[in-house]
Amino acid sequence: MTKMKAAVARAFKAPLLIEEVDVPAPGPGELLVKIEATGVCHTDLHAVDGDWPVKPTLPLIPGHEGVGYVAAVGTGVADIKEGDAVGIPWLHDACGQCEYCQTGWETLCEHQHNSGYSVNGTYAEYALASAPYVGHLPPDPDFAALAPILCAGVTTYKGLKETEARPGEWVVISGVGGLGHVAVQYAKAMGFHVAALDVSADKLALARELGADLAFDCSEGDGVEKLLRATGGGAHGVLVTAVSPAAFSQAIACTRRRGTIALVGLPPGDFPTPIFDVVLKRITVRGSIVGTRRDLAEALSFVADGKVRTSVIEEPLAAVNDVFDRLRQGRIEGRAVLRP
Amino acid sequence: MTKMKAAVARAFKAPLLIEEVDVPAPGPGELLVKIEATGVCHTDLHAVDGDWPVKPTLPLIPGHEGVGYVAAVGTGVADIKEGDAVGIPWLHDACGQCEYCQTGWETLCEHQHNSGYSVNGTYAEYALASAPYVGHLPPDPDFAALAPILCAGVTTYKGLKETEARPGEWVVISGVGGLGHVAVQYAKAMGFHVAALDVSADKLALARELGADLAFDCSEGDGVEKLLRATGGGAHGVLVTAVSPAAFSQAIACTRRRGTIALVGLPPGDFPTPIFDVVLKRITVRGSIVGTRRDLAEALSFVADGKVRTSVIEEPLAAVNDVFDRLRQGRIEGRAVLRP
Amino acid sequence: MTKMKAAVARAFKAPLLIEEVDVPAPGPGELLVKIEATGVCHTDLHAVDGDWPVKPTLPLIPGHEGVGYVAAVGTGVADIKEGDAVGIPWLHDACGQCEYCQTGWETLCEHQHNSGYSVNGTYAEYALASAPYVGHLPPDPDFAALAPILCAGVTTYKGLKETEARPGEWVVISGVGGLGHVAVQYAKAMGFHVAALDVSADKLALARELGADLAFDCSEGDGVEKLLRATGGGAHGVLVTAVSPAAFSQAIACTRRRGTIALVGLPPGDFPTPIFDVVLKRITVRGSIVGTRRDLAEALSFVADGKVRTSVIEEPLAAVNDVFDRLRQGRIEGRAVLRP
Amino acid sequence: MTKMKAAVARAFKAPLLIEEVDVPAPGPGELLVKIEATGVCHTDLHAVDGDWPVKPTLPLIPGHEGVGYVAAVGTGVADIKEGDAVGIPWLHDACGQCEYCQTGWETLCEHQHNSGYSVNGTYAEYALASAPYVGHLPPDPDFAALAPILCAGVTTYKGLKETEARPGEWVVISGVGGLGHVAVQYAKAMGFHVAALDVSADKLALARELGADLAFDCSEGDGVEKLLRATGGGAHGVLVTAVSPAAFSQAIACTRRRGTIALVGLPPGDFPTPIFDVVLKRITVRGSIVGTRRDLAEALSFVADGKVRTSVIEEPLAAVNDVFDRLRQGRIEGRAVLRP
Repeated sequence: MTKMKAAVARAFKAPLLIEEVDVPAPGPGELLVKIEATGVCHTDLHAVDGDWPVKPTLPLIPGHEGVGYVAAVGTGVADIKEGDAVGIPWLHDACGQCEYCQTGWETLCEHQHNSGYSVNGTYAEYALASAPYVGHLPPDPDFAALAPILCAGVTTYKGLKETEARPGEWVVISGVGGLGHVAVQYAKAMGFHVAALDVSADKLALARELGADLAFDCSEGDGVEKLLRATGGGAHGVLVTAVSPAAFSQAIACTRRRGTIALVGLPPGDFPTPIFDVVLKRITVRGSIVGTRRDLAEALSFVADGKVRTSVIEEPLAAVNDVFDRLRQGRIEGRAVLRP
Repeated sequence: MTKMKAAVARAFKAPLLIEEVDVPAPGPGELLVKIEATGVCHTDLHAVDGDWPVKPTLPLIPGHEGVGYVAAVGTGVADIKEGDAVGIPWLHDACGQCEYCQTGWETLCEHQHNSGYSVNGTYAEYALASAPYVGHLPPDPDFAALAPILCAGVTTYKGLKETEARPGEWVVISGVGGLGHVAVQYAKAMGFHVAALDVSADKLALARELGADLAFDCSEGDGVEKLLRATGGGAHGVLVTAVSPAAFSQAIACTRRRGTIALVGLPPGDFPTPIFDVVLKRITVRGSIVGTRRDLAEALSFVADGKVRTSVIEEPLAAVNDVFDRLRQGRIEGRAVLRP
Repeated sequence: MTKMKAAVARAFKAPLLIEEVDVPAPGPGELLVKIEATGVCHTDLHAVDGDWPVKPTLPLIPGHEGVGYVAAVGTGVADIKEGDAVGIPWLHDACGQCEYCQTGWETLCEHQHNSGYSVNGTYAEYALASAPYVGHLPPDPDFAALAPILCAGVTTYKGLKETEARPGEWVVISGVGGLGHVAVQYAKAMGFHVAALDVSADKLALARELGADLAFDCSEGDGVEKLLRATGGGAHGVLVTAVSPAAFSQAIACTRRRGTIALVGLPPGDFPTPIFDVVLKRITVRGSIVGTRRDLAEALSFVADGKVRTSVIEEPLAAVNDVFDRLRQGRIEGRAVLRP
Repeated sequence: MTKMKAAVARAFKAPLLIEEVDVPAPGPGELLVKIEATGVCHTDLHAVDGDWPVKPTLPLIPGHEGVGYVAAVGTGVADIKEGDAVGIPWLHDACGQCEYCQTGWETLCEHQHNSGYSVNGTYAEYALASAPYVGHLPPDPDFAALAPILCAGVTTYKGLKETEARPGEWVVISGVGGLGHVAVQYAKAMGFHVAALDVSADKLALARELGADLAFDCSEGDGVEKLLRATGGGAHGVLVTAVSPAAFSQAIACTRRRGTIALVGLPPGDFPTPIFDVVLKRITVRGSIVGTRRDLAEALSFVADGKVRTSVIEEPLAAVNDVFDRLRQGRIEGRAVLRP
């Protein structure tokens, strides 16, 4: 087989085109992965809209939550073989030599490539991966359920770690969408008390169902006030899954003295930070970007233990533009996953 | 003696009045301190201007960098005696029982009192102190030189600790004024490589003299650019001693991936935070407020070792309004200290 | 009421005597607590046997896991009133002023008093407590079940924190007795994978019932070997609840590279540490002693959430010598609790 | 040139033989380094004596503190070229893929090779290196002075980091030999207060000269006692450079409550650990093994800054057996360096 279907961006802010393109051949250290499922992330919207300072080169196949079986193995790969179940994350590869790669912070490597952004991604029947950077899936995986772990899962798990909250303490999950519904489960599995914030009654109900101890509507005037009372002064950690000025401002208000807010989205623009409160309460505001291979291995392990289960809507690859529209409108419950 | 001179605020945004008032009597657990010197801090301006959400009750004697000899001891004080040299810091007292007091974070106590703000301070011949919360000075102290350690010293020392930079790494001191000129010395004594940022050639020269490895004019277009080159990608820690939107924005730009910015000023207002950069570079923005008794003891110990020396301008207490004017105009080199 | 029954040690290594003694009167800052239940700890054996370098002064009422209602309140106590349910821990009081007390490490205070050791304890109908140092129980408490949290609970909880293991990682609980059976539950509630080690099939079965993922008989030759295989190289954290040379040696063998062993018992004597392994694997061996008031509050909170439940055997106070005998012989399942 | 002189071990516990052997050819990813200087470490004695559980395969060229110029570059090396000045450390290479390599702990990699132990080392005119694992030296280096940084330097620097002491706190350097005389300088450059312990008046004098604030003879009965008094209760960090039962026991005695002892030697045998003290004082005993590439880069940077200078005795390669003898007898001041 030499041709495959792929969803291709040929112009920014335009619909993706479903095209027949060449199946790529794995070079040294690379894998060819037959994609069984690939999650749809807000970052993909930013990529195809050209929202960020450094834009991707077009044409581009987006996608960085791709999972499937290894179909071919490039030279020099010792420990992975055809038929292995793997996942392709946002961190396609990194240099392995810089101060960040050497210290367990490969996600900060200035020479990294990103799947579906600086290199072609997983909205296709096949995709290339860098062997040392794939995620390793359990045998006979539930691909659709695992796909979102490659980004939504590892990103929220790492963000929760980055709050430095300890088991028994309170964390707030702000936003119960594609990231947040997974974050609630990681937070419970990590031993936290969990309070969810959202503006939709359905999503708050979902949060409770997934284990949240508290769930408040933050569009109501007293949502934050209730949270402060119920937690005895605010949360030790706050994970903001959908960074907007309003969500950021509420996150600050929900944070306990000495607490940490982890931000995991990548919206363009500036957000007003109230210095007085941040200083007086010794609040920490921290960005967190996806996760390393170890973070991913850990995130997958919680799923293997049955402690985290994604809620997914499966759609064919050809429906990608419709899925993008629904995602833009906030009409996706949980995470959408494309099946090529 | 039953009367003393004090500088009293009777209305916000009005000059202080030098008045004769009663010498206060120490209650249980309290000390009466004969003030030998008291530093002048930006916070005193905020206090007498009523800048912050919770305003002090007037009339008020400002001042929270007061040092002198114990003149009288209240009941129930076992380990301090008349004639001891002590200092009165911003943290006048705390509850001792809350989760913050119990865990070494008494500066976050919600029941704390603040010298020269919620209780009378040290712009006077005598001032009351809470015995467990005073700083302990060496015998025969240089009072004028030590006064600024009570706030400027401990605040910058703690802020540097809060950057979590390690010896050998780079820290930036943004602003070489009353706080910054002390911060440069603490940073060197802590084993950091130090880069100073300011807009005044005199202050940059002072920074170099005090040990800064680099000093750049950040009003010039390429000051930040030079700093990034010289440090090989930015500083691991950044201490912003004078928080303004411009300083904050430069601080973000100077921060190495995974680095931490500590903010120690208390300006009112919001500052625009570029979420994209903060997330992508995993930057941590952290507020830091003065320091605990242990931080103060450590800060004083660096001075006792001869590693930190404040640069002070001594003025009589009666000159306080003139000093305030010069401070507002940025015309104080180092720190002004009043001698009652 | 001016007389009470108490179990009194009048000579080392002799049985306790049940005597009528005066009910003590609470001084300033103290509480008189009517003891409803009091747990029996190995430390009590060390106390009455005079095993440690600094021996208690006799006569002594032992006991430091006492819970009950406040019966009288000394002067100067603002926030506790008659009828409150409280617990008296090993840390009877501390100085509040030293470097340890000021930094959240009051358990290291060199001026501390210890209940049932340097001051009279809780093997009695009434006991004195220092108001700031009591544990606060929920209303209508199950006293017998809560008593062991005051020492066994907080000690193991703190020990687990001190391993610095993170949720999702492996911890080993070595010994499933009075401490270990609580430790297994804390470890699960903290999100760890848990492997239990013991030499008794009953105790291993109990560990599994309480949630341990693995339980191995370490008296069998291959218990440690099995654990290493099942955890993929050993545990990130190891809690040794019963420190003996054999247990210590197995703990080292079970520890993953870079892992931490926390020791929480206080046996006299030296234990052989294999430096070569400790260095080459970068193993950390750390002592941990009971817990602070915050640790205790957190430990109690896990119980209130229903995540930790002690297994207790209730006995009348008069049975104390018999309970001691059974404890010495390892014949107590879970924890013995005396009801005065 | 195809032949070189090398010092070769052909039998354990026998003298090294100076032989003519083939110059090795660098394979893919390797470098051939012309050795200008190579330090002599106690580990080399353990290697040629076959002291450790896993013995090296003979014949073996020892040596893991080799520095020199790159003489030839294998295929696939992008960023290093002929003539670069590099150093070959103990960590010859690691797998790059395991949990330790991925998290900045490559020194714990179970698949690592060690220079002069599992692969040939640097007691020769030429040696092979793995390109990603060499240390990078400044241009025109003082080779003899830099050689000991490759092991003695990075080992003590990392050990000091592993004590988790902070600038301004006390560290003890136990033993002022090849490792200790470097450790004293790193400790001062890191902002610590430094107390040195040794049994030789000359070495204590050297420690003082290198900046130690205190230096005590621990063979005298009251050396430890003096140290405890002078530091106000013991050191926050203790680095044991020469682990013997006596040194270990003194290290425990010198440690402040909550302090950490880092052990960096690799003697065979067990050391008696007093559990009671370790638990009651919450002491941490931690092994530390050499350092990672980042640790090495940092260690070299302190030297480049002029803050650390090794004291070396230069000898020709042919004198290696004599040097070994003097090292065994403790007659080397500072570090011996061989010049091939």
